[in-house]
Amino acid sequence: MALIVQKYGGTSVGSAERIKNVARRVAATRAQGHDVVVVVSAMSGETNRLVALAHEMQEFPDPREMDVVLATGEQVTIGLLAMALKDIGVDAKSYTGWQVAVRTDRAHTKARIEEIDDGKMRADLEAGRVVIVAGFQGITADGDISTLGRGGSDTSAVALAAALKADECQIYTDVDGVYTTDPRVVPEARRMDTVTFDEMLELASLGSKVLQIRSVEFAGKYKVRLRVLSSLIEGGEGTLITFEEDENMERAIVSGIAFDKNQARINVRGVPDKPGIAYQILGAVADANIEVDMIIQNVGEQGTTDFSFTVPRSDYKATLELLHNSQSSLGAAAIDGDDTVCKVSIVGLGMRSHVGVASTMFRTLAEEGINIQMISTSEIKVSVLIDEKYMELATRVLHKAFGLDQNQAG
Amino acid sequence: MALIVQKYGGTSVGSAERIKNVARRVAATRAQGHDVVVVVSAMSGETNRLVALAHEMQEFPDPREMDVVLATGEQVTIGLLAMALKDIGVDAKSYTGWQVAVRTDRAHTKARIEEIDDGKMRADLEAGRVVIVAGFQGITADGDISTLGRGGSDTSAVALAAALKADECQIYTDVDGVYTTDPRVVPEARRMDTVTFDEMLELASLGSKVLQIRSVEFAGKYKVRLRVLSSLIEGGEGTLITFEEDENMERAIVSGIAFDKNQARINVRGVPDKPGIAYQILGAVADANIEVDMIIQNVGEQGTTDFSFTVPRSDYKATLELLHNSQSSLGAAAIDGDDTVCKVSIVGLGMRSHVGVASTMFRTLAEEGINIQMISTSEIKVSVLIDEKYMELATRVLHKAFGLDQNQAG
Repeated sequence: MALIVQKYGGTSVGSAERIKNVARRVAATRAQGHDVVVVVSAMSGETNRLVALAHEMQEFPDPREMDVVLATGEQVTIGLLAMALKDIGVDAKSYTGWQVAVRTDRAHTKARIEEIDDGKMRADLEAGRVVIVAGFQGITADGDISTLGRGGSDTSAVALAAALKADECQIYTDVDGVYTTDPRVVPEARRMDTVTFDEMLELASLGSKVLQIRSVEFAGKYKVRLRVLSSLIEGGEGTLITFEEDENMERAIVSGIAFDKNQARINVRGVPDKPGIAYQILGAVADANIEVDMIIQNVGEQGTTDFSFTVPRSDYKATLELLHNSQSSLGAAAIDGDDTVCKVSIVGLGMRSHVGVASTMFRTLAEEGINIQMISTSEIKVSVLIDEKYMELATRVLHKAFGLDQNQAG
Repeated sequence: MALIVQKYGGTSVGSAERIKNVARRVAATRAQGHDVVVVVSAMSGETNRLVALAHEMQEFPDPREMDVVLATGEQVTIGLLAMALKDIGVDAKSYTGWQVAVRTDRAHTKARIEEIDDGKMRADLEAGRVVIVAGFQGITADGDISTLGRGGSDTSAVALAAALKADECQIYTDVDGVYTTDPRVVPEARRMDTVTFDEMLELASLGSKVLQIRSVEFAGKYKVRLRVLSSLIEGGEGTLITFEEDENMERAIVSGIAFDKNQARINVRGVPDKPGIAYQILGAVADANIEVDMIIQNVGEQGTTDFSFTVPRSDYKATLELLHNSQSSLGAAAIDGDDTVCKVSIVGLGMRSHVGVASTMFRTLAEEGINIQMISTSEIKVSVLIDEKYMELATRVLHKAFGLDQNQAG
């Protein structure tokens, strides 16, 4: 008998019928003798509906109130799933983020989990109940409702698994595992049986969309055994995220290609080329809780420099406005940007021991006439920023160039 | 400078545009120098949508989980209204039922308010903020989400007004006051400038739909000055609910006609005619938290009796099931019912000092061929249960018979 945390995303609970289907899966796990904690997202489409309503009220909705509105999506799902379980004879009880309680910091709409009280959940599990927890949400020290940002339900699940020392955290999604890249873009993409945490971290952060990055970080930090499975297909093994590299001796050099359209480029042109200018520009952006990803600084003319960086597309307007407000104090000649860019990345542990991987990537893109706007690298990945219209093309040619189309170990 | 509690119902917040309209009204009250606490319902249609989803999960949804689902409706509205107020420069803060906290008993889906903590609200009002509270909901001593039942937002508003000792509680609705009857049924119906609490209590309990009965009881108990106003028309005075009878010396004998389709009749036939049988039947119904309204007991044959009573239509099936389960212990020959009935009532303080009011009512209905199934009376009202297909006709002819079509004092 194990303790299993199962997380079902928006598509898996997207209709009354699908919620009932989730109830049957949970009941089956329960019937195998396991204790089950279920984390659910809002029904698909619901979060978008709520965001649209909020934007009808305010161009930039108040973050505290945004969380009040957004948190209702998951609250509906937990109640419905509890009913569906009771309807098939499985005792269950639902909890919102504040009821559990999932304590977070005060960064509304992108809060971080600080602490989870497992008391209520343990009592219910001991009483033989399935525990259902609303993903994506928590409560601040002030008693305000907070949310963790898009995809936050994965993080909720992993954090709960860590707090409860669960034997496995299963993330059910609409794909049956982690692929070498998105099969909708490259039909030849293959499911990986295992992937290492380091690789998954890069794949998640680069927008592979299967798992939210913070959930992977969390899982790595607390050594939570994490598995990605399909909620639509019965009996699949999914992809297990492994801690041990040596489980995968025969890895390919590049194990996956990720891409991410949630990118916008900001250019601060003609600023004085003096120490501290990067901090002056990026400090203000960081203070506004906007995440900066890629950064480059070009040498300009006559003691000035051009400074470029990328932010999530949803923060594009706010970043531009923020910088325009401090344009004169920065001494910038111009501030502009482009929100029609995307990031494409190759990821693989094998890159550590192989040279020439980046140059193969650049050559492959050049042969297709794709211009590279920015480059960033880490030990196990190379990312490039390109025009979003080339995203699919770039992914396809890279997938082929690194031999991911062929069946191979890993 | 006064402290005013304003409540806006589902229709008044039924769209983004209407929520903005409410924000402008609140801002106008604020601009007059008043402190404002706003109580809102779910956007119209939302509660029905959630109820339908719940019923797709379970025929009789679990009450605790039902409240988890239903409470989201108001939570969306409070967040949106706070955004709309901030957008026009009015500082505001939203609170759910548990945040305030509105403490209730454990009767899920029809909980009663026990206590309200005014600490957070007072602090916000002192800081110059508009306070927005989700109507209809609260929290139990166990930390579970509870709801007050349909129309509960009125009760929330009055309870908050009582807790805060507000100068006036204004209920904004889609009508501009309390009418002699529903103008959609009788176009000649007239708005009353004032109505007494006793009359309002009867009108509300009889389904006039303008105010929920518990809100009127609450207002009477805590002497909350209550006014019904239109959220659609600017500048109306609405109807003030008065405590003093002598404010209305020249009242009509009958001041209003109420009707209510939320009625179902249950018949328990051929039970032994012995002491305690009424308690035996109705005790079980009361234990299930089902409200019984009209009751009659007919003498049957050979030491048996027929027992009939009415319940809310939503409890019809549950009541029948419950009684069928105890049919043998009751010794009943048959248990059946009818959920196509309605209640029509005449209400007026003047009935105290006038005779023949009931007989005028019965004669008027008889002249139209309308059969009366049950009768119940109080000091200031007479109610009859009739076939629901005659509801509009009965209301029209009674409105005319008691001279409510003509302009008169009150």
